[in-house]
Amino acid sequence: MIVVKVGGAKGIIYDLVLEDVAAYRDIVLVHGGSGELNRVSEKMGHPPQMIHSPSGHVSRRTDRKTLELFTMVYCGKMNKMIVEKLQQLGVNAVGLSGIDGRLLQGERKKAIIGIENGKRKVICDDYTGKVGKVNVSLLTVLLDSGYLPVITPPALSYENEAINVDGDRAAASIASALKAEALVILSNTPGLLRDLDDESSLIERVERGRIEESMRYAEGRMKKKIMGAAEALEMGVTRIILGDARVESPVTSALEGNGTVIE
Amino acid sequence: MIVVKVGGAKGIIYDLVLEDVAAYRDIVLVHGGSGELNRVSEKMGHPPQMIHSPSGHVSRRTDRKTLELFTMVYCGKMNKMIVEKLQQLGVNAVGLSGIDGRLLQGERKKAIIGIENGKRKVICDDYTGKVGKVNVSLLTVLLDSGYLPVITPPALSYENEAINVDGDRAAASIASALKAEALVILSNTPGLLRDLDDESSLIERVERGRIEESMRYAEGRMKKKIMGAAEALEMGVTRIILGDARVESPVTSALEGNGTVIE
Repeated sequence: MIVVKVGGAKGIIYDLVLEDVAAYRDIVLVHGGSGELNRVSEKMGHPPQMIHSPSGHVSRRTDRKTLELFTMVYCGKMNKMIVEKLQQLGVNAVGLSGIDGRLLQGERKKAIIGIENGKRKVICDDYTGKVGKVNVSLLTVLLDSGYLPVITPPALSYENEAINVDGDRAAASIASALKAEALVILSNTPGLLRDLDDESSLIERVERGRIEESMRYAEGRMKKKIMGAAEALEMGVTRIILGDARVESPVTSALEGNGTVIE
Repeated sequence: MIVVKVGGAKGIIYDLVLEDVAAYRDIVLVHGGSGELNRVSEKMGHPPQMIHSPSGHVSRRTDRKTLELFTMVYCGKMNKMIVEKLQQLGVNAVGLSGIDGRLLQGERKKAIIGIENGKRKVICDDYTGKVGKVNVSLLTVLLDSGYLPVITPPALSYENEAINVDGDRAAASIASALKAEALVILSNTPGLLRDLDDESSLIERVERGRIEESMRYAEGRMKKKIMGAAEALEMGVTRIILGDARVESPVTSALEGNGTVIE
């Protein structure tokens, strides 16, 4: 079993990724849609807002209106576009969000602390959280019947509200729940870079004990990917590859060891 | 097995419908989202356009851009809102579009003839069609595992393109494929009315041989509902009820015979 996560950032050519995904059996695809959500949110008159945490993390402010736009873009546009493309490639894909069949459940954050104009602010009406439980039996039923699950946030809180969860970390939970041999996280960089502006500064290998150390190279979204990788290792996945979504056969390339291999 | 279709028109209170749906076992829910699609299309700068056919039918012009908005609203916002609400009611719902697992397949119309300023116009880039095949095995696998399927258009063409299909007629195909005892079609009227402006002019019963005749009372969306009902009868469903979505326990009320019963 392989779990592949592909992000929604600029520069990612979905067709390349999906053509490669279609060549595998026993594969689960997890995707994002943040770039498209930003575009749609602007058009719908509810521009994206980011929350800067005291520890330097950046996350999306997800009020109920944002959550609706989130489901429109992630579960509607992105998920169905991917499923349609996979069908065209002869793969019988089934698109699911984390709330379908309680596929991804987790705790909603009671409060989020953000920094605004240098001051701390407590936000209580945010719908974000972290995946704690994966409904493996739903995935197994679909996989055993020959379907390829295409999974997207949101997840479902334990109080049954849709919640925004990080896609990379959701993919890590899924890989661990399915006891996957590998988790491939594809994005628009060659992997973890020593110098963000220099794609040749790729860190090719990170050993288990060195993950904390490698975090200092990670910026922005890459931080979440490294956290996802660390969690996946913690939860029993033996091999995580941060690969480049922009190359030919990106899944195969990553599985061959191109990118940052964490094991 | 009961199949319930609930539309997306004004005046429908989803909570009423879903609370009642949650009280049943062996039930499949099919939904629409046309009202919401109109609102979102306006906001996204691609206002809805309708095609008037020479025979007087009105349908949505579905170019590729509309199809994207369609999946956003139907598969994203509406479907996930319904699944979330059902989860809150303790029902483990799974939302699916017709393209997921090739659940609903059908022929895409090669060309559509519309009347524009009194002249006929041939439209070839429209993504619409009609459901011809239902993937019963996917539904059975989910139902047998205890999930409640919540189904929405689009369907998948035989060339693997997403296509806009009528929700009422899709529900009829599903009811027939599942050999359902009843198909309940809920909308924002008490049923088929002799006089559209008089809700007390309800036609309580239409016998099989009288469907054609009853069509002359049907206007707009109601035409599709009657066509769906006729097709369902044709395909072996013995009882179709056109019921009112706006009353307490609308599913139960319809099954008790309130509305227009076609059998």
